[in-house]
Amino acid sequence: MTQLLDELYNIVGREHVYSAYSDRYCYTYDASFCTVQSGNLPAFIVHPGSVEEVSQLMQLANREKIPVIPRGAGSNVSGGTIPVRDCMVMVLTRLNRILEIDSRNLVAVVEPGVVTGVFQQEVEKLGLFYPPDPASLPFSTLGGNAAECAGGPRGVKYGVTRDYVLGLQVVLPDGQIVETGGRTLKNVAGYDLTRLFVGSEGTLGIITRITLRLIPLPEAKQTMLAVYDSVDGAAETVAAVISAGIIPATLEFLDQVYIKNIEEYAHVGFPLDAAAVLLIEVDGDPAVIEKQVVKIEKICRQQGATQVRVARTSQEAGDLWQARRAAFGALARLKPTVIGEDATVPRTNLPEMVKRIRRIAEEFDVLIAVVGHAGDGNLHATFLCDERDQEEMARVDQAIAAVINAALALQGTVSGEHGIGRMKSGFLARQLGPAALGLMRNIKRTLDPNNILNPAVMFGEGQE
Amino acid sequence: MTQLLDELYNIVGREHVYSAYSDRYCYTYDASFCTVQSGNLPAFIVHPGSVEEVSQLMQLANREKIPVIPRGAGSNVSGGTIPVRDCMVMVLTRLNRILEIDSRNLVAVVEPGVVTGVFQQEVEKLGLFYPPDPASLPFSTLGGNAAECAGGPRGVKYGVTRDYVLGLQVVLPDGQIVETGGRTLKNVAGYDLTRLFVGSEGTLGIITRITLRLIPLPEAKQTMLAVYDSVDGAAETVAAVISAGIIPATLEFLDQVYIKNIEEYAHVGFPLDAAAVLLIEVDGDPAVIEKQVVKIEKICRQQGATQVRVARTSQEAGDLWQARRAAFGALARLKPTVIGEDATVPRTNLPEMVKRIRRIAEEFDVLIAVVGHAGDGNLHATFLCDERDQEEMARVDQAIAAVINAALALQGTVSGEHGIGRMKSGFLARQLGPAALGLMRNIKRTLDPNNILNPAVMFGEGQE
Repeated sequence: MTQLLDELYNIVGREHVYSAYSDRYCYTYDASFCTVQSGNLPAFIVHPGSVEEVSQLMQLANREKIPVIPRGAGSNVSGGTIPVRDCMVMVLTRLNRILEIDSRNLVAVVEPGVVTGVFQQEVEKLGLFYPPDPASLPFSTLGGNAAECAGGPRGVKYGVTRDYVLGLQVVLPDGQIVETGGRTLKNVAGYDLTRLFVGSEGTLGIITRITLRLIPLPEAKQTMLAVYDSVDGAAETVAAVISAGIIPATLEFLDQVYIKNIEEYAHVGFPLDAAAVLLIEVDGDPAVIEKQVVKIEKICRQQGATQVRVARTSQEAGDLWQARRAAFGALARLKPTVIGEDATVPRTNLPEMVKRIRRIAEEFDVLIAVVGHAGDGNLHATFLCDERDQEEMARVDQAIAAVINAALALQGTVSGEHGIGRMKSGFLARQLGPAALGLMRNIKRTLDPNNILNPAVMFGEGQE
Repeated sequence: MTQLLDELYNIVGREHVYSAYSDRYCYTYDASFCTVQSGNLPAFIVHPGSVEEVSQLMQLANREKIPVIPRGAGSNVSGGTIPVRDCMVMVLTRLNRILEIDSRNLVAVVEPGVVTGVFQQEVEKLGLFYPPDPASLPFSTLGGNAAECAGGPRGVKYGVTRDYVLGLQVVLPDGQIVETGGRTLKNVAGYDLTRLFVGSEGTLGIITRITLRLIPLPEAKQTMLAVYDSVDGAAETVAAVISAGIIPATLEFLDQVYIKNIEEYAHVGFPLDAAAVLLIEVDGDPAVIEKQVVKIEKICRQQGATQVRVARTSQEAGDLWQARRAAFGALARLKPTVIGEDATVPRTNLPEMVKRIRRIAEEFDVLIAVVGHAGDGNLHATFLCDERDQEEMARVDQAIAAVINAALALQGTVSGEHGIGRMKSGFLARQLGPAALGLMRNIKRTLDPNNILNPAVMFGEGQE
């Protein structure tokens, strides 16, 4: 142990290694409702300052068969950065430089520790746009976003992180440094390693540099709120808007639990008796937006909206979005434990999915609020509970399983954007079937034969 | 051999197996300038009619270690479907049904043998759009497009095939049937197997079903032609238009050799003395297009365009695009052998790349015409030669290598959209380096341990 520590000191410098009990304990959490087993503390936390250091750390870990948990801000909600016993937690936040923003080629090169929101502000100053917008963007890192293939409300129009990653530098479990992809939009030089690493949740390699595609910043945007006294009306609106050839930048759905709770917390003028609201943003050319707002308003009313409000000022729009962003946090007023699910279905199955969630809430007597990126069918069934109440938590576990099974039955996926992590590894096989799961495990074994990289996520602990 | 044939007859039916010398000879070509070594004929050609038959064929091939070359229309230009000695050519054109077009979820499900252009017409009838537009789209298949990750002129705005594939059904080399991805835009259930297979050139599995993302059909489009007396002016225009926040649907560049030749062949009014022309199409909302055309015209003139013509009628626009599409074929008037390269660079390196191609043409005394999807830096240096002239072909080979090296030196890729196939396997290592290449070969070995699937492409013949 002492010798190992000396090696770590040599690689990253003594000031970038933490091994006190209190430090180790501090890295047992992430933003998920997932706690490490008692006593499963990491052995040490290291903060490398360069790709070379990452490579040396991986060589050491591979030689000594020490599990390595790569970590950005730890803001994932799937347990993707929960450590295993005696592992090395590798924190990549020192690698936080924006290396290049090339506005003529619409390309940026960043280190993994750059905070998503900071990067977005920087490119927007140049009239450019990096769309992926996970709720965690004020603190999440771009490396974490790439490893998790983060999504967000804008996914319906702009896609998710994988659609913006052109190339990567990755350190493999044996310390080899690999460059994938490149700087061009079109690139078919061999297998698509870039997208193999994107969304691999730190199980195949450590991302040390990211080349990102940018697009021009839309000229203008407009926010509107539509209020419904039935969930069906809201859900039907979503499909009708898109069938009319309009892809809004965001199309957010909130159910009555959320509405009531947000309103009581933020006072933005949501009607307390509404069954559902849609928060819709369109962006692009001002003339087009104007036409789209008119069309969308008409569709909302056709589908039974009792009220449609177009934000008149950017202040008003800002307030609505502020309220949406506060939604999750506001729920903590009701119950101490808030678990956000992200099972996702094709958008026309949304009404049925919401109905099934309601039924599941009744069946298991648990409190479920529903919010979601309705435009891409990415619902967040939100479980409100108290983790100290074991009896309640057992019912919550059953209800979560029922929600995931409902999504799979409705042609959906166990996870739209949160990732598998530790939280959903038990459900992965059900979606994939043995052939696809076997193939993924073979790929993991090929890249990481000693199973040292984030070994408890994706396929479940102790599965190798 | 007789016993093998009997097994094949049992699986697909006698009428779907071809083993006569003439049949075998007929499958030694594809659209590339790549000929099979003398005597390297396939042993038989099979046309399976279902995924189950594909699976049984792969089980047989894997047991007997028979190489299998999957084939759609054989329209790739990289030698991706050139057989190896005594292989089984598996032609997938019987699997040619459009299984579903779901206009409310913007999703379609197709079999791999559906012709790209036919599919596009079908979805456009419903007001939907499938953008990838390889030049071969009148006859190429969607399975081939997925296996090659086909691109086309619209890549600059709409991306390439990988951006539209949501899920796949794939038969692995051992006959297992795998389902990847799904029907939702957001999906992070495990590794991105979908994009591992897209662009894998038939080396990892046989694609038997494809779930595709669609988008709304743009309301209108407008075509314009800008004429330059210098290549630099045209190339600078490309970067300037995109820097102005306009992403045209296509931004095609043609050099003087192409211009002169097209004009003599098609008489569309290209000025014979021009150094370069840009053919630009914008699409979307009519009001926005109108504004964009004005802006683009201004930029073209600022960058020295001697003439800017906006197509007044759809007939006129059609003629211009007809001419562009005829470009490659028209060159056959000059020389019997026409080889289209597709080394690609970041778009701001286009002027330098065109200069280097000119210099290479002089140095090796070969005739090179340049056309390209300039918006995404995807040039097609086109070598005009006579394959019967061995001395000339030696110079052409050297010139091709020089062009590829120039692209790599300018932060580019050996292939933007044609694929590696047999033509570029020798260059792959130079771009990837040993670590990335080694990783790809490990993935190939993991999925196809007997190296039976398209063994001569990507990594080169006899490399395993």
